[in-house]
Amino acid sequence: MSQLTHINKSGQAEMVDVTEKSVTQREATAEATITMLPETLQLIIDGGHKKGDVFAVARLAGVQAAKKCSDLIPLCHPLMLTSIKLDLEADKANNRVLIRATCKLAGQTGVEMEALTAASVAALTIYDMCKAVDKGMAIGDIRLLEKSGGKSGHWQAQSVSEAE
Amino acid sequence: MSQLTHINKSGQAEMVDVTEKSVTQREATAEATITMLPETLQLIIDGGHKKGDVFAVARLAGVQAAKKCSDLIPLCHPLMLTSIKLDLEADKANNRVLIRATCKLAGQTGVEMEALTAASVAALTIYDMCKAVDKGMAIGDIRLLEKSGGKSGHWQAQSVSEAE
Amino acid sequence: MSQLTHINKSGQAEMVDVTEKSVTQREATAEATITMLPETLQLIIDGGHKKGDVFAVARLAGVQAAKKCSDLIPLCHPLMLTSIKLDLEADKANNRVLIRATCKLAGQTGVEMEALTAASVAALTIYDMCKAVDKGMAIGDIRLLEKSGGKSGHWQAQSVSEAE
Amino acid sequence: MSQLTHINKSGQAEMVDVTEKSVTQREATAEATITMLPETLQLIIDGGHKKGDVFAVARLAGVQAAKKCSDLIPLCHPLMLTSIKLDLEADKANNRVLIRATCKLAGQTGVEMEALTAASVAALTIYDMCKAVDKGMAIGDIRLLEKSGGKSGHWQAQSVSEAE
Amino acid sequence: MSQLTHINKSGQAEMVDVTEKSVTQREATAEATITMLPETLQLIIDGGHKKGDVFAVARLAGVQAAKKCSDLIPLCHPLMLTSIKLDLEADKANNRVLIRATCKLAGQTGVEMEALTAASVAALTIYDMCKAVDKGMAIGDIRLLEKSGGKSGHWQAQSVSEAE
Amino acid sequence: MSQLTHINKSGQAEMVDVTEKSVTQREATAEATITMLPETLQLIIDGGHKKGDVFAVARLAGVQAAKKCSDLIPLCHPLMLTSIKLDLEADKANNRVLIRATCKLAGQTGVEMEALTAASVAALTIYDMCKAVDKGMAIGDIRLLEKSGGKSGHWQAQSVSEAE
Repeated sequence: MSQLTHINKSGQAEMVDVTEKSVTQREATAEATITMLPETLQLIIDGGHKKGDVFAVARLAGVQAAKKCSDLIPLCHPLMLTSIKLDLEADKANNRVLIRATCKLAGQTGVEMEALTAASVAALTIYDMCKAVDKGMAIGDIRLLEKSGGKSGHWQAQSVSEAE
Repeated sequence: MSQLTHINKSGQAEMVDVTEKSVTQREATAEATITMLPETLQLIIDGGHKKGDVFAVARLAGVQAAKKCSDLIPLCHPLMLTSIKLDLEADKANNRVLIRATCKLAGQTGVEMEALTAASVAALTIYDMCKAVDKGMAIGDIRLLEKSGGKSGHWQAQSVSEAE
Repeated sequence: MSQLTHINKSGQAEMVDVTEKSVTQREATAEATITMLPETLQLIIDGGHKKGDVFAVARLAGVQAAKKCSDLIPLCHPLMLTSIKLDLEADKANNRVLIRATCKLAGQTGVEMEALTAASVAALTIYDMCKAVDKGMAIGDIRLLEKSGGKSGHWQAQSVSEAE
Repeated sequence: MSQLTHINKSGQAEMVDVTEKSVTQREATAEATITMLPETLQLIIDGGHKKGDVFAVARLAGVQAAKKCSDLIPLCHPLMLTSIKLDLEADKANNRVLIRATCKLAGQTGVEMEALTAASVAALTIYDMCKAVDKGMAIGDIRLLEKSGGKSGHWQAQSVSEAE
Repeated sequence: MSQLTHINKSGQAEMVDVTEKSVTQREATAEATITMLPETLQLIIDGGHKKGDVFAVARLAGVQAAKKCSDLIPLCHPLMLTSIKLDLEADKANNRVLIRATCKLAGQTGVEMEALTAASVAALTIYDMCKAVDKGMAIGDIRLLEKSGGKSGHWQAQSVSEAE
Repeated sequence: MSQLTHINKSGQAEMVDVTEKSVTQREATAEATITMLPETLQLIIDGGHKKGDVFAVARLAGVQAAKKCSDLIPLCHPLMLTSIKLDLEADKANNRVLIRATCKLAGQTGVEMEALTAASVAALTIYDMCKAVDKGMAIGDIRLLEKSGGKSGHWQAQSVSEAE
């Protein structure tokens, strides 16, 4: 099996050197969920119908977090994302909010971490805005759904390809 | 049921005004997990026995993320944490890493978001360092375990109190 | 006439030493306007009735900018604001948006710069979101309306006290 | 009339996707003024003849703010500016300081926001350094003077083209 | 001999928990030098007599770096400095610039790292501004000169107490 | 002799305009040392054999500081580094730690400041982690060892070329 790319031969953590990698169009989509009491979700939806503020704040927090990714994740390369999109949806059947984040750029390294960070911070922001009424919310299912571009090419999470 | 504290009467998102709150000793503990292939966990453990680098990097990333919390979560107050601790543990039975983060300060507002952010970013950092060998890892179970201090007093997640 | 407090006796710029100042309750309110074409304001209002997004984004940008003030203004002290509020209003009679920002904390130094920075960045954010349809917008009237707390006590801008 | 580019079809705020835009040479110049008491301006000028510190600090603050623009303005793209210049001038006839900021890069999106942010933060920095002697200063006339590059090509503010 | 405070009993790096420490007045002074060709120092001095720009920029960079210390040094606590002063002096006899930085606050932890970081970044900034004419400059002698406050009390570097 | 590139004809500090420079492969290596008591070095080495934590934390701090360079050094351009490597070595003969940092990118401006900043912050981090047992440590010998790429081509510090 292959080795961890961020650990060099001396066992030390380090950034992967992407100097020689070619610049290709790259894209990644990640997902997160936040599960809550039905009443909490209803409060968000009620607010959402009128002003959409919880979702609006969470979306913006996700966009800004994607831009800060290389500052948050120590061995991530600085990148200049050309697109960051967040999509939030109330899933009443499962008492949760679904968050999907997609990032794009033409660069030498993938944007999975940016998409995962955007989705995670959007979920944390929802927690922050609803924690006064529901401390038991749980964030989960943070995973990469799909990525394309770069040497490793296209990749899709199994459950996604099955579901579609 | 009570209202979302970050949405004012006009339906606008805003920071909660904590000017009048008293300064008390506050503490919060949050948890996150990252589930992976058994081989991926073994790679971390093998590295861990020698150098511990994946866990060391994730722990530091969590500490630094806790300090950046008010920059990441739009309506969080700036705080001066007096303690940030991260504990990472390989849970081989469940093919996952368990992350616990505890934050403390004497202040006017709680530190739940700092603990949740620390645990989340530590998990994202593990994803980053292992993604070359395992893109299907999933981060989950991000939740508050316990908090104390402030007007709302002590709170503990149900499953925690049951389990202990 | 008194001297510039940030220039020391050798003519060098420096932070004012507030070590000996007492901690008092401080508050400041600042204002900014952004003037635009009537059609641009109408687009914001139309969006505003449905989703309020331009104002929601500008308000959040202002809140976050207030928290970054000591990083932006070189000789500002780091502060822990306890409240940041932004109020945006469409002023159709004058084809402009009025922005008011109020910041509070208990500390050793005033929060005028935080309030002024919040109002300015909220205005810049409106410019950003509307610039594709109206590059000629102008931001102006950025000024302190009122401050209280600290040794210099209460201060109010003349036109404000006259107008009220 | 055209739509706000940062509001998508569902009425949600989002970054404009510039992935498909071509990389062109881009440049933008913005202006700001800060009006003050004649005595305050004289203090700056007197200091300026000796050490120039107020202008030196404001210029640096503007340069650094331009680099932080995508962190301040939520829907701005991260950019790698190749030039940031600030020009400050004491305008004694009008009791004010004139600030002009010019930014350049070869990229996929314009640099208007960077120039506007640089000019605004330079003005705020002057306010900060002089506020102990003159709280009534007002920042205004923040506007784009000229931009070039990109699909929309060259644009110049009306009053500028008239005046020159 | 005592243990490294940032390494816990399990050998893991962690922030020192200062929750129980009392708030006292703290102060620290640090030093750095940058040695260069005589001609380089003369260029700075010549510029310095007229505009003082290299020293002015370095001083500001040092002030801002002190404020960012907890973001740069992973296990440093966030602090609210009440004073940051930098003093730069051309030492022609030794072809170098002497930099002294003093930081103060009332807090639960010392400010040595803030003073050392301020002095270091001021030296790096001088390197940046002069590197086009002198790549062989060397920064050195970065050390703590004196600290006071807190449980460990007053401390002074040996050579300082000898020299004075 | 040539002029300081960051001081323009009016004697004002400014960023060098690199808009017209060509994109070339650039690389720079810098060095720093931190000298300490023999017992302090032994504590690091003993820890190092088991967990390596002081060196691991310092290495990460250096990597993250290189990414923040344009935020720390006022007139540095924002860059997207493709590689940052830090090498730390205990030099028992001289009671010190040797730090070498190498940065790379394809860009319009050199990466000397990034390498120097990485080495400096790694040294400051070691100071932070050991200061409880040894306040008299001194950081020195911060200098550029070698750079390549760009118009000025290859450059190497004299003592390095002599030593090798």
